Amino acid sequence: MSTPKAAKVMPLSGFPEYLPAERLAEQYVLDVIRRTFELHGFASIETRAVEPIERLVGSGEDADKEIYGVHRLAARSDERGGSDAELGLHFDLTVPFARYVVENAGKLAFPFRRYQIQKVWRGERPQEGRYREFTQADIDIVDAGELSPHFEAEVPLVVAEIFRQLPIGDFRIQVNNRKIPEGFYLGIGLTDVVGTLRIVDKLDKIGPDKVAALLVEAGATPEQAKQCLALAGIRTEDLSFVEQVRALGVQHPTLDEGLAALAAVIGTGLDLAPGTLVADLRIARGLDYYTGTVYETQLVGHESYGSVCSGGRYDSLATDGRTTYPGVGISIGVSRLLGLVIGRWGLTATRSTPTVVLVALTDEDGRGDALRTASALRARGIATEVAPRADRFGKQIRYADRRGIPYVWFPGAAGASDEVKDIRSGDQVAVDAATWAPPAEDLTPGLVRPP
Amino acid sequence: MSTPKAAKVMPLSGFPEYLPAERLAEQYVLDVIRRTFELHGFASIETRAVEPIERLVGSGEDADKEIYGVHRLAARSDERGGSDAELGLHFDLTVPFARYVVENAGKLAFPFRRYQIQKVWRGERPQEGRYREFTQADIDIVDAGELSPHFEAEVPLVVAEIFRQLPIGDFRIQVNNRKIPEGFYLGIGLTDVVGTLRIVDKLDKIGPDKVAALLVEAGATPEQAKQCLALAGIRTEDLSFVEQVRALGVQHPTLDEGLAALAAVIGTGLDLAPGTLVADLRIARGLDYYTGTVYETQLVGHESYGSVCSGGRYDSLATDGRTTYPGVGISIGVSRLLGLVIGRWGLTATRSTPTVVLVALTDEDGRGDALRTASALRARGIATEVAPRADRFGKQIRYADRRGIPYVWFPGAAGASDEVKDIRSGDQVAVDAATWAPPAEDLTPGLVRPP
Repeated sequence: MSTPKAAKVMPLSGFPEYLPAERLAEQYVLDVIRRTFELHGFASIETRAVEPIERLVGSGEDADKEIYGVHRLAARSDERGGSDAELGLHFDLTVPFARYVVENAGKLAFPFRRYQIQKVWRGERPQEGRYREFTQADIDIVDAGELSPHFEAEVPLVVAEIFRQLPIGDFRIQVNNRKIPEGFYLGIGLTDVVGTLRIVDKLDKIGPDKVAALLVEAGATPEQAKQCLALAGIRTEDLSFVEQVRALGVQHPTLDEGLAALAAVIGTGLDLAPGTLVADLRIARGLDYYTGTVYETQLVGHESYGSVCSGGRYDSLATDGRTTYPGVGISIGVSRLLGLVIGRWGLTATRSTPTVVLVALTDEDGRGDALRTASALRARGIATEVAPRADRFGKQIRYADRRGIPYVWFPGAAGASDEVKDIRSGDQVAVDAATWAPPAEDLTPGLVRPP
Repeated sequence: MSTPKAAKVMPLSGFPEYLPAERLAEQYVLDVIRRTFELHGFASIETRAVEPIERLVGSGEDADKEIYGVHRLAARSDERGGSDAELGLHFDLTVPFARYVVENAGKLAFPFRRYQIQKVWRGERPQEGRYREFTQADIDIVDAGELSPHFEAEVPLVVAEIFRQLPIGDFRIQVNNRKIPEGFYLGIGLTDVVGTLRIVDKLDKIGPDKVAALLVEAGATPEQAKQCLALAGIRTEDLSFVEQVRALGVQHPTLDEGLAALAAVIGTGLDLAPGTLVADLRIARGLDYYTGTVYETQLVGHESYGSVCSGGRYDSLATDGRTTYPGVGISIGVSRLLGLVIGRWGLTATRSTPTVVLVALTDEDGRGDALRTASALRARGIATEVAPRADRFGKQIRYADRRGIPYVWFPGAAGASDEVKDIRSGDQVAVDAATWAPPAEDLTPGLVRPP
């Protein structure tokens, strides 16, 4: 293999990589996500990394995201644009999932509950929490024809169950229903719903005065602009948002539908997981993608970092011309979340290896016995390595210490029993490889946050 | 979101995707691999999907593999070749690992044991077992300066432990040491070692007569060609290969080194896992990459399918100009293995979802209680969903049956206790969500092979 030149061995901006202890922290988080998704009956799928570019362009919530094209170097000059479709890397997991559903509709059982944890790629300018390669963890429930509305309460509660298992502090899942602003705007006589949403969506960035000015510039009366801002200001942890909207005196059947749907979602949240869901009538998300409930998630005290988990309901995730597939889904921005938790807060794993026990060597002739001790421990689920060299014990202990391996195992001399040392406390006890086990909290690496 | 046109919704040759039950079978295999790697103290890393093309071209064991280039669509005309390095998708996990080691050498503890399970991409012509996107599972042990030879016996035994947990029948890990043919060829006066290896490597494809003819054409005497073929024919499950080589009467210090090293590896295998490793002096692998021990793995009875796990020792995985990093590694071709096991044999999972229990609904008003029952079961690790609709029970049972969900839970009428039905046997018993658990074999999906 050719020698990598030092000049080329450097990080690529937007393509983060973790050191082993950080990767163990990431795996901890990914394992919590996967386990919880599976406990809720979501089945894993993985889709290929590439889609035909014509399917990617103009599709999805983030249709303006920059796409990476993919081409065979060997085909560059002569074959390109030939028999192979032009391919690009997927920029989310929803567009490939929609294609997968249509492609396999005859073989899937609907409603279909799937999760998907994969890398996605976007050629945008990298910054904290925004990468060119990143991991998303999505769940969606999709049905053929009709989708029961109770699923709209179910998916954010799955995410809440995950977030409560992680050391990320308090969080709020903000829920809205696109029909509320839509019906409200129509009810006050603003017919350009998308245009109005687009302006109100800037509220966090430019403030209410500038939003009002833009609305008036777009044709609204000052009173209509005031009403739009009043609606966007409503935010309740209980069902009182309904009365607050009613108090604005606007009537429209679409508004009624939206309020009833949002009340059902928030009501289920109050019943099953109080304090988790917040009705926030300012949340809009993707302007022509979602058709009902929408979600955004913020960590309390870190609101300016942006949403770490978003999603919503789409009446038509996909269609094959005969059948339409409505769905509801939510996507955890894993890399985005970890950019905060690992990147900024410094969260890491309690050690840099899965190893619990290092079996020390008295001399190189003892390696066979040491390997048998290691096998006996592994057979009972205890991750074990044998010392790489029969150095003096101090050096072997240092090998364990550098990696955070908590236990060093010393083979007994002729007739004597083996001993194991907890190198953190220095405690050393006589043990048998057939029966000894570490405390449960030492069995796999945990998470630690620096003081 | 735009509607996917039917014409574009089709599989891409070389980019296989699994249905949910097949994916569960893949997850089962990946989980066995990961768990075993971790029990042996290998730490996970993940590297970015892309490397600078100049690092990919001409690097790695499979330097002739077709590379996929990656480009930002938006940058196509104006920026290409500008500030961004030209990037390509990695075609193996060794080239990125070598770069990662050099890039992070100051932060890693050596010897460094890492595993890496990721997708890789090659633009080759797809065929059974060969894909354009596929998953590899690699372990490597890399040290700074010197690498102890005992690691060369360790890595194939980890793979053997994995393969013994999978329903893939008998397998043989064939081991050779590149120094044996090298020393042997030099010992009989053939100085073009690489050229000779290249010809002998064709033995399986073209047979001994044609190999002999090619060797003579390349300048060997008929007697030298005969000796080369005699060496390549040696294959033993014990240490007798040493005597068989000695009986050929060739002397060379490099041959002695190779025989001693291979005897150490095979000896450790005989000691710890008899019947797993085979000394096979025909195995060559990558012609200018490995420098000592090399491995290939075949499933017994499926030898023509090719190697499903290969690797070896490299004296210089990477270097930063000051320090050289020797390593030894082995790579399981997960997609290749599953192409046989899932694709050809039809192995799949016992169900198409992780769900163990479907909680049935008497009416929609019972959903809140059903969700609480589901929560109680999940809290004890039992994957549970609630029926999507309060259909008649027959239809709810069919929902479970279509997905292979083994148990349906019926809420008790006022005062009566809940009941759970094993829908395979029809057995139905009174139960409590706080205490009931399924048999361990039903808790997670298992593997089934069609009769």
